[in-house]
Amino acid sequence: MGTTEDAERVVREFCDAFRLHDAEALRPFFTDDVVYHNIPMDPAVGIDAAVAFIDGFFAMCESMVIETVNLAVRDDLVLTERVDTFTVGKVVAPLMVMGTFQVSDGKISAWRDYFDMAQITAMLSGEGDEVPR
Amino acid sequence: MGTTEDAERVVREFCDAFRLHDAEALRPFFTDDVVYHNIPMDPAVGIDAAVAFIDGFFAMCESMVIETVNLAVRDDLVLTERVDTFTVGKVVAPLMVMGTFQVSDGKISAWRDYFDMAQITAMLSGEGDEVPR
Repeated sequence: MGTTEDAERVVREFCDAFRLHDAEALRPFFTDDVVYHNIPMDPAVGIDAAVAFIDGFFAMCESMVIETVNLAVRDDLVLTERVDTFTVGKVVAPLMVMGTFQVSDGKISAWRDYFDMAQITAMLSGEGDEVPR
Repeated sequence: MGTTEDAERVVREFCDAFRLHDAEALRPFFTDDVVYHNIPMDPAVGIDAAVAFIDGFFAMCESMVIETVNLAVRDDLVLTERVDTFTVGKVVAPLMVMGTFQVSDGKISAWRDYFDMAQITAMLSGEGDEVPR
């Protein structure tokens, strides 16, 4: 049970740390060979690429807050259902996301996020919290 | 533990039943008030709407096969990471999906699937198994 509890704790602490709005503060959560894949985009391979990718998110918004709605663990895999909310100027864009995290020795070695690219693009282009259907 | 094991079994049997290519064969898995929400689209509310929605999928393809890559359960919630493969003529379109299932008294009362709409649209329009990046 220790492993699954540790995996859940690591993922929850990682998600909470997005409030710091500092990509370097997330580096200690990743293994050197982490693969971070936003499924609609190219994967970021390796810790430097993953941190740079998140830094790009932070550069385009004032805040990115991750709310974990549901979470379940099997062995070293943590599956999450979340609302990731981006604030850009007056636009508040809550994106519905699911993501899988693989935790190895207390660090995240893989992260895959599933979402509709058109939804976040539309919201950030000024549709505010109008979620396109 | 019985509840989580039952929930997993129900979801695995439901996903396997897509091979039958018969929406009515899926009806017994749903509660009357099921909400089936493909996140990029409008939700289908109620068992008739959910079955009709799946019937629409089956009408547009020769087969839809669900492969569960990862699955984790917490209480009555089953979180899945999957590859749903649609075959339409010569086009084989493997869609990367995550989905949450809520199981109540042995039936699915909520199902939310997360995926990139542009990815499946591009694949079905003839890009075959070329996954757009």
